Amino acid sequence: MSLTLTPLPDIPLIQQGDDLGKAILMALERAEITLLDGDVIVIAQKIVSKAEGRLVNLDDVEPSPEALNLALSTEKDPRLVELILRESKQVLRTRPGTIIVEHRLGFICASAGIDHSNVQEPSDRLQKGAEWVLLLPEDPDASACRIRQQLQEASGAQLGVLIIDSHGRAWRLGTVGISIGLAGIPGIIDLRGQPDLFDFKLQITEVGAADELAAAASLMMGQAAEGTPVVHVRGFPYALRNSSLKELLRPREMDLFR
Amino acid sequence: MSLTLTPLPDIPLIQQGDDLGKAILMALERAEITLLDGDVIVIAQKIVSKAEGRLVNLDDVEPSPEALNLALSTEKDPRLVELILRESKQVLRTRPGTIIVEHRLGFICASAGIDHSNVQEPSDRLQKGAEWVLLLPEDPDASACRIRQQLQEASGAQLGVLIIDSHGRAWRLGTVGISIGLAGIPGIIDLRGQPDLFDFKLQITEVGAADELAAAASLMMGQAAEGTPVVHVRGFPYALRNSSLKELLRPREMDLFR
Repeated sequence: MSLTLTPLPDIPLIQQGDDLGKAILMALERAEITLLDGDVIVIAQKIVSKAEGRLVNLDDVEPSPEALNLALSTEKDPRLVELILRESKQVLRTRPGTIIVEHRLGFICASAGIDHSNVQEPSDRLQKGAEWVLLLPEDPDASACRIRQQLQEASGAQLGVLIIDSHGRAWRLGTVGISIGLAGIPGIIDLRGQPDLFDFKLQITEVGAADELAAAASLMMGQAAEGTPVVHVRGFPYALRNSSLKELLRPREMDLFR
Repeated sequence: MSLTLTPLPDIPLIQQGDDLGKAILMALERAEITLLDGDVIVIAQKIVSKAEGRLVNLDDVEPSPEALNLALSTEKDPRLVELILRESKQVLRTRPGTIIVEHRLGFICASAGIDHSNVQEPSDRLQKGAEWVLLLPEDPDASACRIRQQLQEASGAQLGVLIIDSHGRAWRLGTVGISIGLAGIPGIIDLRGQPDLFDFKLQITEVGAADELAAAASLMMGQAAEGTPVVHVRGFPYALRNSSLKELLRPREMDLFR
């Protein structure tokens, strides 16, 4: 009847090529959690991206003329702007310090989700000058599927896996956790047409269940470090099923705020 | 170390004038939950509004010429549109079926948060024709404060109280729970300037903690009925403190999407 979210302590720092599924299984074992049918594992994008080698050294990036222009008006590093443009379908809004884009994965976010904090190649720990940034996973749904398969094979349980990031909001302050990769967990719960208490048909009736869970898990990951980038969830109140990030994306023709 | 969200079963149908704090205390007792310092009670807007008598019979509403015009272009009931306008500072976007406004409380939402489902005066249960709608509470921060005080006096514990609603999002499908009234729970956690793992300064560092909790609790309330409009939360990971909805509202001059 309760929803319980438990951050897994002691996930090691993840590097390119690390076996993330195995690291999660070991952390579950240390936390003495046995995976059961219906459990969900929520994973911060950052460690998925690192395991998949999505770190880029800014020194290796050659900004295009378009990036140089946009860097001027937004007062951002032209090499970072070049990466933002490469990772985006469309630039929606800009102002000094801010570039809001439609990411190639289809969602709207700042800086194409490229992260500058907690990002450093291990060999650079003493060279504070080296500037690495981290791109989102190439295909987060596929990443979630792979990890889910690995966790299911090891545990024998039917699971959901959710990869999340933190996004700002158009009209509210503060970031909230948001889904970017789904495997086995419904994005949207469609209650349309179900009767309410008084036999009226429900009106507001598509629930962004995966994003609600993403926000919940994000709350338990904190933001200050990457010490707890994996959260175990028990009691997700809906049946698990196949799904995809696409469920959660508003089609462009329904967008009033582009 | 875990966050646990427990929906309280058997909250009775709430009517104008009901003592909501008492109803919550009785439901906690039935669920055998003893309130402890740091616990948070999350309450669906709907039962707060009902207790505060925010039901309006559409037959009592006289639409203005402005409402009649907007009702034509949006294909909505002119009486409902009149109430939406009265509850709003500004209309941002419209299309058939949809009116997006800045609510008088300062947030952006559809239909000024006015709800049509699960709304009926008890005496009208057999008259399906009667059309009641429910406005948001007059001052949700104040409502949260009153309920918090009542729960704290009864329990002796230091608590947070959060009143939530479900909002759609500009670019994503599905509604998510969102804070509209805060008492004793931080809206935003400000991590700006804290060092990350590698002693860089954090960049994305204002966390919308109350909205993350609102989404988590909303997941456990469901939408199909109002059977579980109150959720008990244990393990909120930040210190409780005074706060207000205003913490979470992006100032108009920082809004790129108006």
